[in-house]
Amino acid sequence: MDRKTLEVLSGKIQNDPYARFLGIELIEINKGYSKLRMPLKGCMQNFVGIAHGGAIFSLADHAFAAASNSHGTLAVALNMSITYISAPSEGSVLVAEAKEISLTPRTALYRIDVSTEDNKLIASCQGIVYRKKNSIPGID
Amino acid sequence: MDRKTLEVLSGKIQNDPYARFLGIELIEINKGYSKLRMPLKGCMQNFVGIAHGGAIFSLADHAFAAASNSHGTLAVALNMSITYISAPSEGSVLVAEAKEISLTPRTALYRIDVSTEDNKLIASCQGIVYRKKNSIPGID
Amino acid sequence: MDRKTLEVLSGKIQNDPYARFLGIELIEINKGYSKLRMPLKGCMQNFVGIAHGGAIFSLADHAFAAASNSHGTLAVALNMSITYISAPSEGSVLVAEAKEISLTPRTALYRIDVSTEDNKLIASCQGIVYRKKNSIPGID
Amino acid sequence: MDRKTLEVLSGKIQNDPYARFLGIELIEINKGYSKLRMPLKGCMQNFVGIAHGGAIFSLADHAFAAASNSHGTLAVALNMSITYISAPSEGSVLVAEAKEISLTPRTALYRIDVSTEDNKLIASCQGIVYRKKNSIPGID
Repeated sequence: MDRKTLEVLSGKIQNDPYARFLGIELIEINKGYSKLRMPLKGCMQNFVGIAHGGAIFSLADHAFAAASNSHGTLAVALNMSITYISAPSEGSVLVAEAKEISLTPRTALYRIDVSTEDNKLIASCQGIVYRKKNSIPGID
Repeated sequence: MDRKTLEVLSGKIQNDPYARFLGIELIEINKGYSKLRMPLKGCMQNFVGIAHGGAIFSLADHAFAAASNSHGTLAVALNMSITYISAPSEGSVLVAEAKEISLTPRTALYRIDVSTEDNKLIASCQGIVYRKKNSIPGID
Repeated sequence: MDRKTLEVLSGKIQNDPYARFLGIELIEINKGYSKLRMPLKGCMQNFVGIAHGGAIFSLADHAFAAASNSHGTLAVALNMSITYISAPSEGSVLVAEAKEISLTPRTALYRIDVSTEDNKLIASCQGIVYRKKNSIPGID
Repeated sequence: MDRKTLEVLSGKIQNDPYARFLGIELIEINKGYSKLRMPLKGCMQNFVGIAHGGAIFSLADHAFAAASNSHGTLAVALNMSITYISAPSEGSVLVAEAKEISLTPRTALYRIDVSTEDNKLIASCQGIVYRKKNSIPGID
């Protein structure tokens, strides 16, 4: 995947409707790698007053999508496992970093860590994708 | 947990800020059980045009929270694993059903299935909580 | 997959070297389903004196292999998640039952429960396979 | 946990009946860390002729037990997730390395990688324990 198609994918990741809805921003994307951030807002709290697990997961999942699609072929999530380590304090900015652990023609594995900007580990994830033969719509 | 406290918890689950942000509605809650729904909206799509994994997970996670807190003591999510089965079609209403598989004084396991209203299985989850000694804030 | 090939697969599952090493016996195999048993022995204990998690998993994993290969095409395990519910008492006979939750041409999901013969739930698992195009060696 | 009790635990990990049954050897144990090895034998093959997933998991699980009990208090496995990356070739020696990702008074998370001795990644795991208040039998 050349630089131009990586730019096209960056645009897609950034303009993803759900990511915009949550205020997720792309920091970096590369082959098998991505880094994204999301400032926590009041609407992301749960009924106990801390960040909802679904909000934390959503950021991790979008980093997973960015990294797993970075090779230019369509990657479909099969499974994602999230372990919650600690609760971020109110008003934190969360950062998710996705790294490729393995890549085969049909499947790939990613590790995604979610931390606060001051490096407190919030959640640790592993995600598996099935890699389709199609390229990503709009990239060829 | 008597009927009155189950009503208090229902209110908390329904007024959860993140659940309201996503438009999640509580259908039923009982000891070790919950059923919730969420109509898919345009803002929940990903860059490929289907429901974002993070949105699907968020519904499942809220059903998990409802069921695991239904005994009146505070349950904290340790791990959640989601397997994606099929993509819901546009405009679907998703339904998540959480069932308790095991309950010990300190930990508990739940199975959460997400389907469309016409019973197409979308995702299958398993979640584990650590059960604190505290009761849920506002319930005693 | 006709009855004859199901018989061939039964033989393979039963004569699997690792399954024989552990004393695992096949009770039933059908399309997308399997049931196996394993009497716990002294050599399966861990250093605390209860059944080792690896032994419990091994039984579940073999049930997973039996069910996922039951369609006659080679199924390769991608991921397996096990949650331990309770410890079996000494001398128990464990029974693993694998059920197919979803099946697509390239992937499939299974739920595998491990119980004692008197129906105490010991562990609950979910496993995902990648389905190859090849048929199982010796079956065509 | 002082050096003497770490020595007692080493002995327990090494003399664990199931670990001996499989031929697992302890290479190193430290607070929150362990490294173990297991030569693959013919009895660990599955019916397709490669290492059985249950054998690979068993090694990872024992490394998980060693690392999670290394603080001297009894750690009970709640959940373990294994992703299979590649199949080891016949006669390989597998090495499992467990690292602590997080530690709280009641729960802890470990990442366990299984590789061949020439550093080919075979499987990647994450395991969660519940930490009891009791110390390990024989250690105080």
